Amino acid sequence: MTTFACQDGDMERIQGFLGAVSNATGLSIFLCDKLDNIDGRLGYTKLAVDNTYLLFSAYLVFAMQLGFAMLCAGSVRAKNTMNIMLTNVLDAACGGISYYVFGFAFAFGLGGKTNGFIGHFNWGLNGFPNGTFDYSFFLFQWAFAIAAAGITSGSIAERTQFVAYLVYSSFLTGFVYPIVSHWLWSADGWLSASKTVGPGGLLFGSGAIDFAGSGVVHMVGGVAGFWGALIEGPRIGRFDKSGNSTNFRGHSATLVVLGTFLLWFGWYGFNPGSFLTILQPYEGVKGHWSGVGRTAVTTTLAGCTAAVTTLFGKRFLDGHWNVLDVCNGLLGGFAAITASCSVVAPWASILCGFGSAWVLIGLNKLAARLHFDDPLEAAQLHGGCGAWGLLFVGLFAEKNYVNQVYQTTFDSPYGLFMGGGGKLLAAQIIEIISIAAWVTVTMGPLFYGLHKFRLLRITPQDEIAGMDVTRHGGTAYIHHDNSEHHLQMHTINGQKRTDNDQMPI
Amino acid sequence: MTTFACQDGDMERIQGFLGAVSNATGLSIFLCDKLDNIDGRLGYTKLAVDNTYLLFSAYLVFAMQLGFAMLCAGSVRAKNTMNIMLTNVLDAACGGISYYVFGFAFAFGLGGKTNGFIGHFNWGLNGFPNGTFDYSFFLFQWAFAIAAAGITSGSIAERTQFVAYLVYSSFLTGFVYPIVSHWLWSADGWLSASKTVGPGGLLFGSGAIDFAGSGVVHMVGGVAGFWGALIEGPRIGRFDKSGNSTNFRGHSATLVVLGTFLLWFGWYGFNPGSFLTILQPYEGVKGHWSGVGRTAVTTTLAGCTAAVTTLFGKRFLDGHWNVLDVCNGLLGGFAAITASCSVVAPWASILCGFGSAWVLIGLNKLAARLHFDDPLEAAQLHGGCGAWGLLFVGLFAEKNYVNQVYQTTFDSPYGLFMGGGGKLLAAQIIEIISIAAWVTVTMGPLFYGLHKFRLLRITPQDEIAGMDVTRHGGTAYIHHDNSEHHLQMHTINGQKRTDNDQMPI
Amino acid sequence: MTTFACQDGDMERIQGFLGAVSNATGLSIFLCDKLDNIDGRLGYTKLAVDNTYLLFSAYLVFAMQLGFAMLCAGSVRAKNTMNIMLTNVLDAACGGISYYVFGFAFAFGLGGKTNGFIGHFNWGLNGFPNGTFDYSFFLFQWAFAIAAAGITSGSIAERTQFVAYLVYSSFLTGFVYPIVSHWLWSADGWLSASKTVGPGGLLFGSGAIDFAGSGVVHMVGGVAGFWGALIEGPRIGRFDKSGNSTNFRGHSATLVVLGTFLLWFGWYGFNPGSFLTILQPYEGVKGHWSGVGRTAVTTTLAGCTAAVTTLFGKRFLDGHWNVLDVCNGLLGGFAAITASCSVVAPWASILCGFGSAWVLIGLNKLAARLHFDDPLEAAQLHGGCGAWGLLFVGLFAEKNYVNQVYQTTFDSPYGLFMGGGGKLLAAQIIEIISIAAWVTVTMGPLFYGLHKFRLLRITPQDEIAGMDVTRHGGTAYIHHDNSEHHLQMHTINGQKRTDNDQMPI
Repeated sequence: MTTFACQDGDMERIQGFLGAVSNATGLSIFLCDKLDNIDGRLGYTKLAVDNTYLLFSAYLVFAMQLGFAMLCAGSVRAKNTMNIMLTNVLDAACGGISYYVFGFAFAFGLGGKTNGFIGHFNWGLNGFPNGTFDYSFFLFQWAFAIAAAGITSGSIAERTQFVAYLVYSSFLTGFVYPIVSHWLWSADGWLSASKTVGPGGLLFGSGAIDFAGSGVVHMVGGVAGFWGALIEGPRIGRFDKSGNSTNFRGHSATLVVLGTFLLWFGWYGFNPGSFLTILQPYEGVKGHWSGVGRTAVTTTLAGCTAAVTTLFGKRFLDGHWNVLDVCNGLLGGFAAITASCSVVAPWASILCGFGSAWVLIGLNKLAARLHFDDPLEAAQLHGGCGAWGLLFVGLFAEKNYVNQVYQTTFDSPYGLFMGGGGKLLAAQIIEIISIAAWVTVTMGPLFYGLHKFRLLRITPQDEIAGMDVTRHGGTAYIHHDNSEHHLQMHTINGQKRTDNDQMPI
Repeated sequence: MTTFACQDGDMERIQGFLGAVSNATGLSIFLCDKLDNIDGRLGYTKLAVDNTYLLFSAYLVFAMQLGFAMLCAGSVRAKNTMNIMLTNVLDAACGGISYYVFGFAFAFGLGGKTNGFIGHFNWGLNGFPNGTFDYSFFLFQWAFAIAAAGITSGSIAERTQFVAYLVYSSFLTGFVYPIVSHWLWSADGWLSASKTVGPGGLLFGSGAIDFAGSGVVHMVGGVAGFWGALIEGPRIGRFDKSGNSTNFRGHSATLVVLGTFLLWFGWYGFNPGSFLTILQPYEGVKGHWSGVGRTAVTTTLAGCTAAVTTLFGKRFLDGHWNVLDVCNGLLGGFAAITASCSVVAPWASILCGFGSAWVLIGLNKLAARLHFDDPLEAAQLHGGCGAWGLLFVGLFAEKNYVNQVYQTTFDSPYGLFMGGGGKLLAAQIIEIISIAAWVTVTMGPLFYGLHKFRLLRITPQDEIAGMDVTRHGGTAYIHHDNSEHHLQMHTINGQKRTDNDQMPI
Repeated sequence: MTTFACQDGDMERIQGFLGAVSNATGLSIFLCDKLDNIDGRLGYTKLAVDNTYLLFSAYLVFAMQLGFAMLCAGSVRAKNTMNIMLTNVLDAACGGISYYVFGFAFAFGLGGKTNGFIGHFNWGLNGFPNGTFDYSFFLFQWAFAIAAAGITSGSIAERTQFVAYLVYSSFLTGFVYPIVSHWLWSADGWLSASKTVGPGGLLFGSGAIDFAGSGVVHMVGGVAGFWGALIEGPRIGRFDKSGNSTNFRGHSATLVVLGTFLLWFGWYGFNPGSFLTILQPYEGVKGHWSGVGRTAVTTTLAGCTAAVTTLFGKRFLDGHWNVLDVCNGLLGGFAAITASCSVVAPWASILCGFGSAWVLIGLNKLAARLHFDDPLEAAQLHGGCGAWGLLFVGLFAEKNYVNQVYQTTFDSPYGLFMGGGGKLLAAQIIEIISIAAWVTVTMGPLFYGLHKFRLLRITPQDEIAGMDVTRHGGTAYIHHDNSEHHLQMHTINGQKRTDNDQMPI
């Protein structure tokens, strides 16, 4: 943004304008004081507007954690509801502390020495606020960090020891995820499309564009979930001996729809909020405010298209109009558009959503065939559609939008199908490979080690009984309360009911 | 908003001020550059503030779709929960695509030729963003458009074929609703109170004031629902042969309360958000920011009063303190105040809410007597209270507020009881009649045609079994999962349970 | 905020600068007109930004009412769900009307005569908007006012007559709470840390700092709940004759988690929103925008720490990883940090949360021992952790933050452990004592009077049957609908089911 505050030499220029008139100095000081003051107040205004925008976006992203909790709860069987909800609450709570102490430092910490792989400054928000970071930025990034672990907990739901959860979730949120976000989003990340600091320019002249994290958040969570679910194996009874799969439906479709809509709501913080600022003009009447709005529109259209595609696709394949499939299709569309939401046109976002629906349907077919059991379809949805979304950027990113969003003034690569060459696509492929490899070499051994030390999976007895009763103090739902029961026994001579007589939401 | 950028002649004036002093030209150029720059940055700031305001308002309005989904789910019987939630998800998803491709163009499309009846420009957001439209405006209007179809799906819940839903909902969201919103809210709409383009002035000197859509959204949805419910007839068992009605209560009061509160929350986007901008000064310290706040207050007070009136009214009539009735009363108050929220005083909004409670109670009594079955009371609530709200504008609109909100500087008509004459009331009555007629001649024949071709109502067998099992792949709630069941059969010698042993949220 | 509008004498100064040059008057008028205009537009911009910020914060605080409703519903037994949800809806609805008519006037009404105990101006929002109050401020304060009554209704849930609820809730929201908020937050309140009006300076040179209401909201609600629950006595069967306590778990953990997350979400309006404005610079790049963000961070960290502490503490004490305990721990952390959120550093907020977890665990142990029955642990949580939070301010408030947030330029007292002396701590203790005393002398006699006149507690028969069936028109959940039942009886020869065959969410 240009400034009208007085620059070096302005004082002399004003004095010169007035020639021999007395007090020309006074006039120039007067005017420059006023202009400096105006400039300062406009600067304050920008900070207030941008922080308001970013904070409320962060609140929306946080609401996604509630969406995840409800989606997960509804998607598991009633007997594991307490367990899965506890992991969702703890993703946020443990993540808050670890991201404050060291997670943010790994991800964005910026100081004298740059490092493309990992950050190592601003421990415990040391130095906050400064010209680079304010608390709103930390809060926004924390809300992102806790999302990845939530994805993974869906993949390994209903059969994982709680201690294993505590271990992998801390490692994922505190170390694995921050590293990837450093690569892509830090000013000195080696893959970053907004790299401005450190040796070497942008990778392939563009860096990899992952605007709001199809890779950084969704692929990271999905790939981690893939390894967890693979190593644990399917839930008991999910595939019978003859190889047929049994549909283990979750216990409450209402919670699934509630969670899906809350995620949709929160995604308006996730994607448009990733602009971080809204008071950033380009030219004419355009600025980030238009880009932010367009991003909300592309996000909406991709999700909508994926939902409708899934509706008709699954009706054709399975014969049902299934709201649960539509919800997952919708979320897959969102996960896919997240990388490209700010740099593709609305019409292209429809293609992105259409493709993501088939990616998810195809991967789910494949998972069933390979007897891969992911209760939330999280590996397929976040991993698969996330990767599709990263490719999509390389194909459909618009020149104008890339220049505006990433403030590139030179001849930066853009989407292959838009005439921008193959460089951006190559960078996107590098991102996919790098994330898959990094998460594999970190989370794979961790899950395998937990497995070897018998810390990963619960016992078959516990799995059949349900984790809520065996580990979490009781079932999530209680129908007949004790007092009623007690009184019925003694006064009404009613039939004794068992304590298990509970039921789902 | 006035401008301080240099106008024609300013350059000469500054030069004149300085007389014979050398470089007077330089000074004038210097000052004007600075002033232009300041003006530009203030303009950018206004765009950022207004877009932030409108986008977050749009997100809140979108949250109402979740509210509707939960309200509807809780208000139907458990066996139709999957069905009604699918329609709520699809209202948003299908509506997103159709409103992008052509719905917005019908509603607001503005180009060389004006047309008071229907818009026909900006297909597929062609020309976005420009000085008139930005993406945030599209998103806000989309969130409105999908609300109308949700209202209608409530009226015909629990007995309508899914294919019929797809047909009427597309037609309503894609065509019927956009036309009405064009009449009232487009710059060239024939009924619009903010008409600035096209032949003819404001209808009766004021146009019809329907600030956030008591007519455009609520009456449209309610009248469509009325015809659908009338043509389908009541649910099986709702009225017995001797003419008595059976109370078909929904399966979960918790979901009803959840949905009601979410709608209340979202209504703060719906009503105050309809100012579209917030950085618009009037005089002194007043501006849209005060109007926006006042609108939030009138909305709150109308809903609160309607809720309390319903509480005591129903206690007196039925003998219960009923939270479900209070929720519907509350929503009726909101539907009613929606037209007048920005132009009536807080004290008047209390009257509006009080009246709407009795309108709803009265219409519900009438519906029961006439054996009209609307599972959500949507026709009565949105149609009846919406019409009451439109009348209320003509009676209580304040002169000052009308002038400020609609930027009318001349002697514009206002509320009859406030001394503003009968012209505004006449315009409001024209709106009621026009909307009722338009929805009747479009949706009536559509529902009747579907009925004649046996595409509207499901079979009695399906209705008794529930649509979730027969059409949507299963029930919404599952108590005992397959694995447990399977194992119980073989290992614990438990009693075999049927697959139908599910239960509601 | 400094101004660059022309001040007295500026006109003469500009003329003096230009000496004998003709039209110096014209130049000075020209420049001052421009500068005044710029200043005006910046002022309008500030109003728009601050009102946007405050309104959306108010909407978030309102969302807490939904959170409370879900938390309460899930924490009671299924048979009392309709009852508790009705009280939550009515807290908001009745509170809206009473706070508009007189509650706001008691709390903040400001006119010619000051009164440190109670306000008595601005009845019915008379005089709105003016330079001091706009509608957004009323809405924000209303959303606070309705929270206190919600806390109390949790303490006395499952056994209180509905008429008693109507009485105490009106008295609490309309009178008891507004008085306390006047003391602490009004410009002439005797305990206020931002007192600027009326005789006498700040109490002990600082006033009591209760930024967002650990005392004003949480202690008021908690102490009221304490007296209510104490006078009513425990629910039937809660403690048996041998003195053992029976765990009356709520009927739905899903609703508890949903409510807790919604409260967390809304707390971002409650605490950061209490700055009321965001466009308020301090120096350099700092301003309220950083303070607001820091407040969101301290709030997050306190809640997170309390949750994690509770998780491990209760695992150690009880042997379970219990999500319900974690949720209550989390909320206790929020209630505690609410007083100090804007004036302590992020690291200190971790201590605050850690302490609050043990306060809650300890008070719950004590309550069980004393046979004190509070279904929501509301007295312990909001009363106990709220009081701990008030003490915490006196120990850890930072000098810088106190100066910035409360605009104190002189040598104001701050936290004891930060080197600020004991004066602030003394003021905090005065606040704790004053609130406890005021609520005790008002609510105690009220509850006792209701008790004496047999208006407080329901009959044992009703308590065993549940209030939903006896008072509120039916149960919250319905499994088998009438039509199905009817048809089963006649066509399938099924077993007749009773009307009581309902089940929880």
